[in-house]
Amino acid sequence: MQIAIIGLGLIGGSLAKALKENTTHTVIGFDRDENTLHDAMSCGAIDRMGSTAALKNADLVYVCLYPKDVVKFVEENAARFKPGCIVTDVCGIKGEVFGALTDLAARHPFIYVGGHPMAGKERSGFEASEAGLFHNASYILVSGDAPQSAVDTLAELAQAMGFGMIQHCTAQKHDRMIAYTSQVPHVLACAYVMSPRCDDHRGFSAGSYRDVSRVAKINAELWADLFLSNRTELIDELSELQQNIERLRMAVADGDREQLVALLNIAKTKKETFG
Amino acid sequence: MQIAIIGLGLIGGSLAKALKENTTHTVIGFDRDENTLHDAMSCGAIDRMGSTAALKNADLVYVCLYPKDVVKFVEENAARFKPGCIVTDVCGIKGEVFGALTDLAARHPFIYVGGHPMAGKERSGFEASEAGLFHNASYILVSGDAPQSAVDTLAELAQAMGFGMIQHCTAQKHDRMIAYTSQVPHVLACAYVMSPRCDDHRGFSAGSYRDVSRVAKINAELWADLFLSNRTELIDELSELQQNIERLRMAVADGDREQLVALLNIAKTKKETFG
Repeated sequence: MQIAIIGLGLIGGSLAKALKENTTHTVIGFDRDENTLHDAMSCGAIDRMGSTAALKNADLVYVCLYPKDVVKFVEENAARFKPGCIVTDVCGIKGEVFGALTDLAARHPFIYVGGHPMAGKERSGFEASEAGLFHNASYILVSGDAPQSAVDTLAELAQAMGFGMIQHCTAQKHDRMIAYTSQVPHVLACAYVMSPRCDDHRGFSAGSYRDVSRVAKINAELWADLFLSNRTELIDELSELQQNIERLRMAVADGDREQLVALLNIAKTKKETFG
Repeated sequence: MQIAIIGLGLIGGSLAKALKENTTHTVIGFDRDENTLHDAMSCGAIDRMGSTAALKNADLVYVCLYPKDVVKFVEENAARFKPGCIVTDVCGIKGEVFGALTDLAARHPFIYVGGHPMAGKERSGFEASEAGLFHNASYILVSGDAPQSAVDTLAELAQAMGFGMIQHCTAQKHDRMIAYTSQVPHVLACAYVMSPRCDDHRGFSAGSYRDVSRVAKINAELWADLFLSNRTELIDELSELQQNIERLRMAVADGDREQLVALLNIAKTKKETFG
């Protein structure tokens, strides 16, 4: 296959490297930054730099841009894709992107399958990308009305790239789960480091500080968009969390040891049961 | 030195192993569980099992019991310690324990120095203990009126055991900082996994779920006591966190992208600045 990767940042760059390392497909890289394209060529992450002609011949296109740029890119190129070409994205939230690309695919002869590789890092850009980024990670596919063969193609490539699990679901389920598993921890990390105590934590902190605060090193523009495009689900999950913190806080404030032990044991059992 | 370790759980067992591996002092182990004592003997974590006579000859006593049992143990044995013996504890909260042991030391010829090795694990008991547990960890010493020589003795042993940093402070500062660096993350982890979404997280989660939820596998009885013995400081820090979550939640709810980006950038800068 001719595989086009649009945007060679952390995710796009890692997909390129993982595809080159684990498959024999031809990888064509697109990026607005010339230096990134040259870096990608010189380290062998891509076979060729992209061109309009190359895009027309691609069998599969991974659009690895920021959510707001994904729809724009596909809109502008919808008429150029080869008939039967599979177009997929890597957006952390599916809502708006999934609806818009599904509509475009219905009006053009390409196939759209939503995708979300559940991997990341605190650093971004091509220089942070690596072939092993997806090792044992989960790859979520939101296939909608796409033909099974297209879904299978993406799943097979994901397995070759080292993903540990392929998860299929609807866009709605995806966004509800991601609000909990990914967005809430990012909000939390940011809220946590806002305390004045953060400034003096050295010498008083260990693993639990490090783990909760890790993702506070956030890409603010990207995550603001991700949060706002999943507003309802995120607000719901944050309210759920706020209620549970309040239950624990009240038990402490009331000095109610029995209630506190009971609540902590509920949490312990859930963590042991669900991992 | 003759070093007595009272309680061979995760911390006491790890101290015993680290002392044996890195120093030439004699380590005498005390535990109410016979099997633990035999395990500790057979793996070389201790030189001898404890006895009343051995306690009387100890130059240094690490009391590694649950907070509520620490004061009781020292009260019952205060008259038995050798004059000039250094007694230290490993309690995660200093407040009550520090006050009670300081009072006992004032009325008996032993020296008390509060200690807190900032290391832990999700597992407990002697079988989870290891000589390397304290590698690069912080060791907090709350010396109060203790002579400098006793503080130096504990600091030198800590360095030999592999601790990466020795931090000196008052009991009050200790407890305020620990509320933030350790207790809030434990409350958070428990509140987080209480969401119904936790039950379905597999396939939708990655590093940020794993990191925030890690310490939800909590020792409920121990942490309930730690929380309640630091009630004021913990309540204050939880309120601070709740306010900051609410600021972020409101920015999302209002769709105020500018405010959201500004808040996320404050967090990012703090994490980058303070680590």
